[in-house]
Amino acid sequence: MKSLFIAAALIIMTPLSPRTAHADEGMWLLNAFPSEKVAAKYNFKATKDWLNHVRLSSARLAGGCSGSFISKDGLVMTNHHCAHSCIEQLSKAGRDYIASGFTASQLTDEVRCPEIEINRLIEITDVTSRVTAATRGLDGQAFNDAQKAVLSTIEKECAAGSDVTRCDVVTLYHGGQYHLYRYQRYQDVRLVFAPELSMAFFGGDPDNFNFPRYDLDISLLRVYENGKPLLNHDFFKWSKSGAQEGDLTFVTGHPGSTSRLLTISELEFLRDTQLVKSLLYASELRGTLLEFQNRGPEQRRYSEAKLFGVENSFKAMKGRLEALQDASFFGKKKAEEAAFRSKINRNSKLKHEYGDAWNEIAKAEKQLKTIYNPLLFLENNRNFQSRLFGIAKTLVRASDELPKANEKRFREFTDAKLPSLKQELFSEAPIYDDFEITMLTFGLTKMREALTADHPAVKAILGKRSPREIAEAVIHGTQLKDIALRRSLFEGGSKAILASNDPLIQFARLVDPEARAVRKTYEDSIEPVIKKNSEKVAKAKFAVEGTATYPDATFTLRVSYGKIKGYLENGRSIAPVTMIGGAFDRHTGSDPFALPETWLKAKADLNLQTPLNFCSTNDIIGGNSGSPVINQNAEIVGLIFDGNIQSLGGDYGFDESVNRAVSVHSAAIPEVLRKVYHADRIASEIAP
Amino acid sequence: MKSLFIAAALIIMTPLSPRTAHADEGMWLLNAFPSEKVAAKYNFKATKDWLNHVRLSSARLAGGCSGSFISKDGLVMTNHHCAHSCIEQLSKAGRDYIASGFTASQLTDEVRCPEIEINRLIEITDVTSRVTAATRGLDGQAFNDAQKAVLSTIEKECAAGSDVTRCDVVTLYHGGQYHLYRYQRYQDVRLVFAPELSMAFFGGDPDNFNFPRYDLDISLLRVYENGKPLLNHDFFKWSKSGAQEGDLTFVTGHPGSTSRLLTISELEFLRDTQLVKSLLYASELRGTLLEFQNRGPEQRRYSEAKLFGVENSFKAMKGRLEALQDASFFGKKKAEEAAFRSKINRNSKLKHEYGDAWNEIAKAEKQLKTIYNPLLFLENNRNFQSRLFGIAKTLVRASDELPKANEKRFREFTDAKLPSLKQELFSEAPIYDDFEITMLTFGLTKMREALTADHPAVKAILGKRSPREIAEAVIHGTQLKDIALRRSLFEGGSKAILASNDPLIQFARLVDPEARAVRKTYEDSIEPVIKKNSEKVAKAKFAVEGTATYPDATFTLRVSYGKIKGYLENGRSIAPVTMIGGAFDRHTGSDPFALPETWLKAKADLNLQTPLNFCSTNDIIGGNSGSPVINQNAEIVGLIFDGNIQSLGGDYGFDESVNRAVSVHSAAIPEVLRKVYHADRIASEIAP
Repeated sequence: MKSLFIAAALIIMTPLSPRTAHADEGMWLLNAFPSEKVAAKYNFKATKDWLNHVRLSSARLAGGCSGSFISKDGLVMTNHHCAHSCIEQLSKAGRDYIASGFTASQLTDEVRCPEIEINRLIEITDVTSRVTAATRGLDGQAFNDAQKAVLSTIEKECAAGSDVTRCDVVTLYHGGQYHLYRYQRYQDVRLVFAPELSMAFFGGDPDNFNFPRYDLDISLLRVYENGKPLLNHDFFKWSKSGAQEGDLTFVTGHPGSTSRLLTISELEFLRDTQLVKSLLYASELRGTLLEFQNRGPEQRRYSEAKLFGVENSFKAMKGRLEALQDASFFGKKKAEEAAFRSKINRNSKLKHEYGDAWNEIAKAEKQLKTIYNPLLFLENNRNFQSRLFGIAKTLVRASDELPKANEKRFREFTDAKLPSLKQELFSEAPIYDDFEITMLTFGLTKMREALTADHPAVKAILGKRSPREIAEAVIHGTQLKDIALRRSLFEGGSKAILASNDPLIQFARLVDPEARAVRKTYEDSIEPVIKKNSEKVAKAKFAVEGTATYPDATFTLRVSYGKIKGYLENGRSIAPVTMIGGAFDRHTGSDPFALPETWLKAKADLNLQTPLNFCSTNDIIGGNSGSPVINQNAEIVGLIFDGNIQSLGGDYGFDESVNRAVSVHSAAIPEVLRKVYHADRIASEIAP
Repeated sequence: MKSLFIAAALIIMTPLSPRTAHADEGMWLLNAFPSEKVAAKYNFKATKDWLNHVRLSSARLAGGCSGSFISKDGLVMTNHHCAHSCIEQLSKAGRDYIASGFTASQLTDEVRCPEIEINRLIEITDVTSRVTAATRGLDGQAFNDAQKAVLSTIEKECAAGSDVTRCDVVTLYHGGQYHLYRYQRYQDVRLVFAPELSMAFFGGDPDNFNFPRYDLDISLLRVYENGKPLLNHDFFKWSKSGAQEGDLTFVTGHPGSTSRLLTISELEFLRDTQLVKSLLYASELRGTLLEFQNRGPEQRRYSEAKLFGVENSFKAMKGRLEALQDASFFGKKKAEEAAFRSKINRNSKLKHEYGDAWNEIAKAEKQLKTIYNPLLFLENNRNFQSRLFGIAKTLVRASDELPKANEKRFREFTDAKLPSLKQELFSEAPIYDDFEITMLTFGLTKMREALTADHPAVKAILGKRSPREIAEAVIHGTQLKDIALRRSLFEGGSKAILASNDPLIQFARLVDPEARAVRKTYEDSIEPVIKKNSEKVAKAKFAVEGTATYPDATFTLRVSYGKIKGYLENGRSIAPVTMIGGAFDRHTGSDPFALPETWLKAKADLNLQTPLNFCSTNDIIGGNSGSPVINQNAEIVGLIFDGNIQSLGGDYGFDESVNRAVSVHSAAIPEVLRKVYHADRIASEIAP
């Protein structure tokens, strides 16, 4: 039943492994789960009720992770690295929860995270016909404007003015389908437990994406409603027996994005332009951050989350680039597309409808290449890496966008998006001047480098000042750390913004027209071509292959299935489960291979044979971090926190022989909560 | 007369420019200069005498640059960036010649550079038949051992035990020819003049490889013999009139390396493996260095040369990668190789002799890929970026290598190489602990990352310590800053090394077997395959196309010809000459666009219409830095210091329409020596 396209991708990744029609591949939609297929292989049939329960017990961290509800009192489990920013934001000099870990002994010790939003998926509705009707017969800017307008309208209707309802229209199959996802939104989320970073991320960057592993990459949060723990009906129970090698496992979570269905020209753009540029940028930023950490322990503390994010994405992108650089893999992808296109071209109706879509996308990618530097460095550059600049940019843009009709705004300023936007904008997370200056200097310097000093936008933005001079002037000069000021500028609109003499607001006003200009070029003449023709490619595939496969990942809820299983690496057999005792064996005493004191002290009390981590064949990718691993009774048996290095090519195709998801084993969690962290209150709540 | 291969490469680079049989392409051997061809185009015939004079007036900086003798008293002109390390090494806290510049008012103020060696090319001898006879019928390790032995023997005979004679056998056409280059070696080289870095490198990294430019990238050195200025017969006179648009120009210098004749599999290896890895490494190192500079003005001063080197090579490699990623360029290179190979295969004799060479090279490149990380990170990693580690490594290796017969040693330890090796080993250049620790930590961390923490070599080298712990321990603990200790360890040989309890010596002994092992794999089973088959490819080309073209660059003396000429960039016409006044127009007051105080003060005195920089069609590449630009009378009209951004693709093919060499104009030099730097003594010496 699986489409040829995907199955072929599988072979490509594993020339030496036999093709199997039963590979545990796929990040499946909750409303299109292949229950029959799974039942045939694993003798367990996921019913509609089972899927509904799984959906409602799953959590999405709006910042980019997954999680699960695991108690009737709103306890949510995710990774340490998913709550890293919160843990860092709650720390301060002399109170470093990143280093020491955090345990709320009592309910009243639980502390609110400034920027975490948790969503629970309530309903999925197919809105494909409404979206495609709105753009029928349109091209270019008109196509894009109409599509954005209809999406904003649908989302606004759905949210119906409620701040606790989140509605997103999700583009599936690159435009083959559009589904409306309605979520319950929770913004009062408090930190309950986090271990020391040295244990959550034992082995650090060197071990990241490796297996065997020995990490306790967990954090526990609690959702509050009206100031009290959420009264929660849907949650995953804890498995008493845990899971072992060979057991069937499901992962429910929010894989961020995959590129398995992209056209060759899009993959070439990724390989030759986007990934290389992003990697070089990330690599220099990494060097900057690592050396910044040497300024002192405080700087180390408050740059840690950013460094982790940069190193993590660096390694992931590097793996993806290497996958695309594999000539035999890429050659087969090319051959596959050529074969599919010639099939389309042999049918005159299909040829007429879809035949030119690939060429149109290729042309758009070529055009994209010509504006990619300004697009990346002026508009999509993560606010020159500066939180404060991001706040200023949002304030300046909001003053222009919010007075417009909802469907005419930039998508991130539509009514449906405002609750999240405000949470971030008015966040009380601490901000550190020296770090801001370092980051803003970096971001502006990279912009000048990419665009050259003679680019009109660079001249307009920098004038006669150097990046560092600007960064020092605007960061030292701004009052935007004052949240009341942010609120008054937000509420005061254009008038307040134009009247503001805050140097960072003034600087953001200097940047904005340049950034808007290149975004407009992209949105008016490149994006619509890609969107419109990607819809055509998707329809051509549906026409030839049917719709029985899964769409590329979109940071929306998916279920994957698989089993706990080892693999071969360079001829060596890797066992699928590690034990707590193994962590002590790997301990060298030197960061990042130094276990925390709490573990060293508790060693005698711990059952060293307790499983600590395991790997499984579940098909996951970035965004799945924090996903629960459940058994067929929908009980927690693990907590996804990584994939092995071989899984990075999973962006372009799944290879069951070596692609592995990596999890904390359920048995380890209550064991260490009780014996290492003396957190009996929490241990009893999840595993009574 | 030019080979088809090269001419075709030309077209490839410029699909829109008309192919011309008269392009100013080529880095020509001094003993195979195409005088007739140049005469036909430019109506000037370079005679043998002219070429001899040019050869003897040219200088090679052994560290990787070019230069020229410009007075009877041994004055040598090169770039500021070629003497940057020396200027930095002669500086100290409170005496920062990088920032302030340096002018020796009198002869006695000239200061010796600790590590600069200058060579003058005395003689070229063809030794092809002797080298190829030594390897005839051999394969693999036997081939490589025999070749290295014969090269070492030839070089030793040539130097005849003299420390002032340097002899190198140069591999031309990737093995098509072997020439013995005999140089006069000068190690007493003193700094005479250097401007402020802000003027030498006005525009900094943002303007690097750009044109128009406004840089005074010059330094003046003087060769001493027996403690006195060299009595020098061969030097370039200064042109009275300078040169202007359209004038014929020659560049004589030492282009480092080009890849125009490499096979496709070698280019693919460069594109997909070598360049990407090197760029990512350089990018993180760059971030580290830039942030390290924020530690303070002292750290900024002594990390400046390294930063310049890293940024310069980063930008150059990035340009090269982009050239190779150009699908149409690369596709044509592939088609060209396929056409050539099918020509070979259609002739049974040629097929028998050379037909399999390309496949053999491709197989070796594939094998190289599998050991490239250990090779790069254990052996070819520039001593983990640490000077002190480099010293320790040299001492440890010398104790193993020097007792062997000359022809059995690693090539860098042969007798002919010892004078340079000793100059560096016993250099009094200052060394800074915090910088060493930062660099060594970086180098060891990258090694662990590339090889993974579980690699046996990493385990052997790091043990239970982190890279930083090791770096701090060995750098703080070593006594190797003491040059007398270095000498005693060098002279004491194995016994002294084995007895040493210096922690850095001990650490280097830990690294050495791992590094030797991977080098051995490379030298025994990969390098000989590439060498042997590259010889075959070269011979196949000679058989089909003759030998009338130039070989790829090899950091040996070459002459290129061309003219001063502008070009079109994005439809905009770029004039070929800039004026001193233009520098004042570009001055913003902020680094790197801040002119030095000396210039601002002298503005009224300067003739702002004096030409400052120019660009010309001469075919150059990295290593040509510091090359003189001369007219047909062999008079100095300029000083090469850069190529434009379009010239970076010149590694793979020359495109006369946009490829430009960038020089300081001869007229600017005496003008500013007199009016800005009040260095009349020096100005009068070069331009009386």
